[in-house]
Amino acid sequence: MAQYFDQVSKIAFEGADSSNPLAFKHYNAQEKILGKTMAEHLRMAACYWHNFCWNGQDVFGQPTFNRPWLEAGDAMTQAKHKADVAFEFFSKLTIPYYCFHDIDVAPEGNSIKEYINNFAAMVDVLEQKQAETGVKLLWGTANLFSNPRYAAGAATNPDPEVFSYGVTQVFHAMNATKKLGGENYVLWGGREGYESLLNTDLRQERAQLGRFMQMVVEHKHKIGFKGALLIEPKPQEPTKHQYDYDSATVYGFLKQFGLENEFRVNIEANHATLAGHSFHHEVATAISLGIFGSIDANRGDAQNGWDTDQFPNSVEELSLVMYEILKAGGFSTGGYNFDAKLRRQSVDRNDLFHGHIGGMDHLAMALKRAAMLVEKDFLGEAVAKRYAGWSNKLGQAIQSGEHSLQSLAALVEREQFSPKPVSGRQELLENQVNLVLFR
Amino acid sequence: MAQYFDQVSKIAFEGADSSNPLAFKHYNAQEKILGKTMAEHLRMAACYWHNFCWNGQDVFGQPTFNRPWLEAGDAMTQAKHKADVAFEFFSKLTIPYYCFHDIDVAPEGNSIKEYINNFAAMVDVLEQKQAETGVKLLWGTANLFSNPRYAAGAATNPDPEVFSYGVTQVFHAMNATKKLGGENYVLWGGREGYESLLNTDLRQERAQLGRFMQMVVEHKHKIGFKGALLIEPKPQEPTKHQYDYDSATVYGFLKQFGLENEFRVNIEANHATLAGHSFHHEVATAISLGIFGSIDANRGDAQNGWDTDQFPNSVEELSLVMYEILKAGGFSTGGYNFDAKLRRQSVDRNDLFHGHIGGMDHLAMALKRAAMLVEKDFLGEAVAKRYAGWSNKLGQAIQSGEHSLQSLAALVEREQFSPKPVSGRQELLENQVNLVLFR
Amino acid sequence: MAQYFDQVSKIAFEGADSSNPLAFKHYNAQEKILGKTMAEHLRMAACYWHNFCWNGQDVFGQPTFNRPWLEAGDAMTQAKHKADVAFEFFSKLTIPYYCFHDIDVAPEGNSIKEYINNFAAMVDVLEQKQAETGVKLLWGTANLFSNPRYAAGAATNPDPEVFSYGVTQVFHAMNATKKLGGENYVLWGGREGYESLLNTDLRQERAQLGRFMQMVVEHKHKIGFKGALLIEPKPQEPTKHQYDYDSATVYGFLKQFGLENEFRVNIEANHATLAGHSFHHEVATAISLGIFGSIDANRGDAQNGWDTDQFPNSVEELSLVMYEILKAGGFSTGGYNFDAKLRRQSVDRNDLFHGHIGGMDHLAMALKRAAMLVEKDFLGEAVAKRYAGWSNKLGQAIQSGEHSLQSLAALVEREQFSPKPVSGRQELLENQVNLVLFR
Amino acid sequence: MAQYFDQVSKIAFEGADSSNPLAFKHYNAQEKILGKTMAEHLRMAACYWHNFCWNGQDVFGQPTFNRPWLEAGDAMTQAKHKADVAFEFFSKLTIPYYCFHDIDVAPEGNSIKEYINNFAAMVDVLEQKQAETGVKLLWGTANLFSNPRYAAGAATNPDPEVFSYGVTQVFHAMNATKKLGGENYVLWGGREGYESLLNTDLRQERAQLGRFMQMVVEHKHKIGFKGALLIEPKPQEPTKHQYDYDSATVYGFLKQFGLENEFRVNIEANHATLAGHSFHHEVATAISLGIFGSIDANRGDAQNGWDTDQFPNSVEELSLVMYEILKAGGFSTGGYNFDAKLRRQSVDRNDLFHGHIGGMDHLAMALKRAAMLVEKDFLGEAVAKRYAGWSNKLGQAIQSGEHSLQSLAALVEREQFSPKPVSGRQELLENQVNLVLFR
Repeated sequence: MAQYFDQVSKIAFEGADSSNPLAFKHYNAQEKILGKTMAEHLRMAACYWHNFCWNGQDVFGQPTFNRPWLEAGDAMTQAKHKADVAFEFFSKLTIPYYCFHDIDVAPEGNSIKEYINNFAAMVDVLEQKQAETGVKLLWGTANLFSNPRYAAGAATNPDPEVFSYGVTQVFHAMNATKKLGGENYVLWGGREGYESLLNTDLRQERAQLGRFMQMVVEHKHKIGFKGALLIEPKPQEPTKHQYDYDSATVYGFLKQFGLENEFRVNIEANHATLAGHSFHHEVATAISLGIFGSIDANRGDAQNGWDTDQFPNSVEELSLVMYEILKAGGFSTGGYNFDAKLRRQSVDRNDLFHGHIGGMDHLAMALKRAAMLVEKDFLGEAVAKRYAGWSNKLGQAIQSGEHSLQSLAALVEREQFSPKPVSGRQELLENQVNLVLFR
Repeated sequence: MAQYFDQVSKIAFEGADSSNPLAFKHYNAQEKILGKTMAEHLRMAACYWHNFCWNGQDVFGQPTFNRPWLEAGDAMTQAKHKADVAFEFFSKLTIPYYCFHDIDVAPEGNSIKEYINNFAAMVDVLEQKQAETGVKLLWGTANLFSNPRYAAGAATNPDPEVFSYGVTQVFHAMNATKKLGGENYVLWGGREGYESLLNTDLRQERAQLGRFMQMVVEHKHKIGFKGALLIEPKPQEPTKHQYDYDSATVYGFLKQFGLENEFRVNIEANHATLAGHSFHHEVATAISLGIFGSIDANRGDAQNGWDTDQFPNSVEELSLVMYEILKAGGFSTGGYNFDAKLRRQSVDRNDLFHGHIGGMDHLAMALKRAAMLVEKDFLGEAVAKRYAGWSNKLGQAIQSGEHSLQSLAALVEREQFSPKPVSGRQELLENQVNLVLFR
Repeated sequence: MAQYFDQVSKIAFEGADSSNPLAFKHYNAQEKILGKTMAEHLRMAACYWHNFCWNGQDVFGQPTFNRPWLEAGDAMTQAKHKADVAFEFFSKLTIPYYCFHDIDVAPEGNSIKEYINNFAAMVDVLEQKQAETGVKLLWGTANLFSNPRYAAGAATNPDPEVFSYGVTQVFHAMNATKKLGGENYVLWGGREGYESLLNTDLRQERAQLGRFMQMVVEHKHKIGFKGALLIEPKPQEPTKHQYDYDSATVYGFLKQFGLENEFRVNIEANHATLAGHSFHHEVATAISLGIFGSIDANRGDAQNGWDTDQFPNSVEELSLVMYEILKAGGFSTGGYNFDAKLRRQSVDRNDLFHGHIGGMDHLAMALKRAAMLVEKDFLGEAVAKRYAGWSNKLGQAIQSGEHSLQSLAALVEREQFSPKPVSGRQELLENQVNLVLFR
Repeated sequence: MAQYFDQVSKIAFEGADSSNPLAFKHYNAQEKILGKTMAEHLRMAACYWHNFCWNGQDVFGQPTFNRPWLEAGDAMTQAKHKADVAFEFFSKLTIPYYCFHDIDVAPEGNSIKEYINNFAAMVDVLEQKQAETGVKLLWGTANLFSNPRYAAGAATNPDPEVFSYGVTQVFHAMNATKKLGGENYVLWGGREGYESLLNTDLRQERAQLGRFMQMVVEHKHKIGFKGALLIEPKPQEPTKHQYDYDSATVYGFLKQFGLENEFRVNIEANHATLAGHSFHHEVATAISLGIFGSIDANRGDAQNGWDTDQFPNSVEELSLVMYEILKAGGFSTGGYNFDAKLRRQSVDRNDLFHGHIGGMDHLAMALKRAAMLVEKDFLGEAVAKRYAGWSNKLGQAIQSGEHSLQSLAALVEREQFSPKPVSGRQELLENQVNLVLFR
């Protein structure tokens, strides 16, 4: 069969001095860093949707890409064509994982039965492709936001039939994910939010979403799916406001419905910044709340207020994010999925490789630097020293609950406490980090 | 004794046709709306800090206001002078409530003992002032963010002695609030956040803050304070990031520490918008989570990224906020506190009256419109109709937990569900609202 | 011929007490305000693109609207069907004007010749429709951003052939606008900006855009088009950054190329806010620079960072905008074009009427209030009084150029100037405005 | 005399392997890069205001720093003390330049005469300090925004006496800058903007500001000042909106008043981002408009909406900015002034060194990388290739004005132009840049 990326062969590691744009300069899959290979650390995935389901169209313009499998034709034939190209790409890129939505891989059809049949048939195709190529499934998910039926949400839709339709897709997508050996199952509530408070019952919608997630958990246990369940926070877009706004909001939601031990978060860099947080903040917050799961690796534009989904390229930012993840023990089931898309002008067929090669190299650059930050852990030491007082008698007494407001106030008055400010040493620590990043 | 506002007498209601800038045109305290007086609905308060502790200084400029009680002099004498002016103002304004921080009303002194003594003396002064004027205390609080000792936070400080110092202030401020008949006690964590993740232990700081709040709850019950405990969310400023980011974040925090039945939120309009939400959103969200408490009435500037704390003047926005509050049953212990300050150029002595008269009139205008929205509740009807499906058999079965993913998927497949999108009617509802706001 | 909006007849003014959603409550075309009819003041237009070329698709979802003329079929037949529906809508709405892009009304075809022929044929259709209905053309424009050839801009494209193709469209669109009696011709540089500075020559692109605009001016004069040329500022989206960022930026551009007397700006509310300005600011700035032309009436969402293009519904904001325009003498060739689109959920056929009826009523509400602000012009008086010093001797001497730094410094020293701050009276003025808006 | 920084001696270059926090690791003043020394390239300056006039106070808190010269005392004695410390710091830091506002260095006094006398006396002190230490003046300026008289602006004040007072300060500050060998004179219009459009005459204020700047130019020529005149754009803060919003806005302003050959811009990184632009954008835009002058080196916080004025530490960003400047020929009179301040928690005396050492090292790191980008100028080549068509026959004909809309449209039709999109290669270029930044 003819190959789509006919000018590209398997991407190899050629080292920092290579001038071959179709080679890795820093990502060396088997290179060991802190006792694990880069591949084991990074667990990278390419996605189906941006790469193979998008034709370059945006709100202001028509398709720009040449994607023959997206043109008119028999839907199942085109879906198989798409799978051929996708696995050709994954293999040549040597990326170990991929991710998909149900309707990325199979035609929706015109009825629930067609959906089920199409999807089942394509899952068989994917299973075979995985076996042939060794590419694995990082996570699967269901698209509950594109079809017009979901215009007002899926789990939070005012119509319980829409809720039920969404449930049906998730049922099949979870089963498919298990069948394909997926290591996680993801929920992104694309339209689980509101357009206008004038027509919205927040309490009702939240209750619906809570029940929906409980059902997902129950099903996971019922079928014995061993992967993690992940929620992907996003503050808005396409909705005016989405319920899974950010990690801290998701945490509160999980607590309300008793789900905090069942779900973790899949943090997307661009969603973090749309929520008014740094990517670093979202990762550190999720870790501190015990709900960190996986990463959608991309970046936004600091001046644009929508999800630009660009390939990650700030090694400065990635290094600190990776430092947090390494300190927390690294991924268990998670990984870095490139939820990133080409610029609409990037119409060369090979641009898809350039985007991913860059992304993978940038993560590798960051991993090497994060490992150095972990090895000589001056940040960890500075933090430990800064909070040392909380390991002392007073700190322990407070934390253990020995003190009331009254007893502590009495102590302060009796002992005439007059604590002195101590420098936070922020400038110094920033300098030290840069000396590692830019040796 | 000489009065400071010597050109102003008690502000009276003169009706919409009055051209007297020092009169109410819409706020008529005893006018009944939906069975309660305006005063009972609005429970408005003026604040001590912006009005009597600020001299017009900003980051780029020197003081502009003439505030003799803020000039050099004996600290306690000046504090009493300040109290004289404050209660002269409250009385002439005919506002029923006020609010304060401990160090707004009493000098901090140079030691914990001086703090305690000064504050106790000034609480006696305030008690007498309240008795003389009939002005009541909506809420008290402690300032744990201005003194250099709190530069790295109070409850979340790396130094447990600072934590303890903060506890001491809260202990005295809660006791004072109870003594003065305060109807709420507020916590705003001005520096409970971080400047840099490089030197911060998020999990440790969160645990400290959780314990701090538990101690506050325990103390409330111990002293039999009947008012509500309130947390005021703010996303940032002066910190880079504050833990009490917004209502949803506070909810998660409360759940983590088992405090969700003990605290409510005091929502500030300008804090809502800094967090990337509408004021309306924050109020509706807090109500839906069962943690709505009180309002800091002000507004931000949609183009400026800091807390401008301007007097509220969007009747459009206030009407919808008030509609939500009326539908939720109105305030219990809460009210509208004007956490608003003059523009730095507003150097006329009477500008303080203009700001508050406007704020009070704008709330009154909004109350009258919100009452109309409640009376012919087309919004409530539209929402009820939109979600009607959830009262039917399918909706009830889902919500009651009868269905699993599998059973529901089977039902959808068997019954061939094919739900049709329904208009959200947003444009129509927006038109209908405006027909009420701008009759 | 069957009508699309078969349940709607001509929209009539029924007054504020009407409960008919398909009637005007405030817009009474022939009602006189300050000596002119509402219709003469407002000069409102409906647009072709959002209303008749958009099917409800967004970046995350499929079409939701039922628009038969957008489905597969013979392109010219469908274009005529579209025109039938559009003019049915304009007529029933009783809106006096419409606006279009060339490819809104005619199929692009597969070559420049097809484009020219299709467009010419459809211009004849439009001419006949206008004659039949009395609907007039407020402005025409050419779409130089949707076709893939324009992915890197039109006038600013790195390829002069693309520039030339764009020129060809503008040539035909200007001629068509003249033929159809259009009162303005608009340029919006949808992709005249950059995606990345790494591949962009700012100086070159700016020079291209300057020449392009000069050619437009030359052509206008050559063909004797009497309408105004308008530029529509927008800061970004779809580009990362657009050259016509805001009114002040456009002014600088016009000055650079000697065009400041040839172009005015068409200000869109949502573009103003995306640029970090209030709508009010952009209008007032354009007026102060002498380049105010027309309005794209819509609104953005204060929390969403993209162009939501909602129908305008803040009477508060519109009243102040309209006050500025009235004070500046009102529109000459400009008007209020509803560059607004339905929410994707608004799938009822009549929602298109609700959006526009609301928009038209809200402008009428604002017009009535703005007229009151003009009649008792306390704002104008306050401003005049505030700057009165500049009419006095010193102010005149400075403005007339009599003084140098040195002579003025000498005067200040000799006369010992010690100017005293004066209140800006902002709170008072805000109160006074609201007393008019919410009588 | 006792030294304030008594634990610090002259900062030396010790190379990348040094672990001495009080040494340069990358900034090696005499190291040659592209034929010039680092010192000649970077022309770095420390500022007087943040370093020596700020005590750690912010809007929410009291002073945190120990700055004895800012405490009560004889004003001139304290000003001399301040100068001693400042020059001790500049010398030990080995930074070649400094910058000041008039009232940073001399007490304002209580009258214009006191101001003049104090300032003249302190200029003599500075002159002697410069001679003793070899530290030079990069630029001087006048503070026309802190004193209450400037609450409503200086040049744009409604009161011409305030305008005149500002003129007087500028007159003396320009003369002082010349006397001290300053290489530039800067204008930052801290309050040249508005708080509310309700009380503002935009056209009048703009005319005042234009005349003011013309007077500055006339004075420059009169006194034979050879340095450059610089305007520092900022969009807002402390104002709601400032007239010198960004570089493009300033350009338009200069064109309006015929000043575009007399002023250049001093671009501050944090002001760029507050205006909704990247720092890179502002520099590239100013260069493309021919008005680039100098840099205020700092950074903002991407999540905070105010001027955080942190020390620059993104080498990624600085490298691209520096690439633009190198390509444009480097600075003439400009340089990198650290308009940066410590975090309020940075209370160690040496933190001032850590901030500057980091800033200087980060600029040096960036300079080395920018030089590599210039040496193998793949970006320049990619851009040249991308726009090559504009050097060909068609491109030249268009640019030279040979074509009208009509002639070009005829050509397109005749030749059947059908230009094909070309990849912008953004991902590839981004990868290539990172391979240089993170070798």
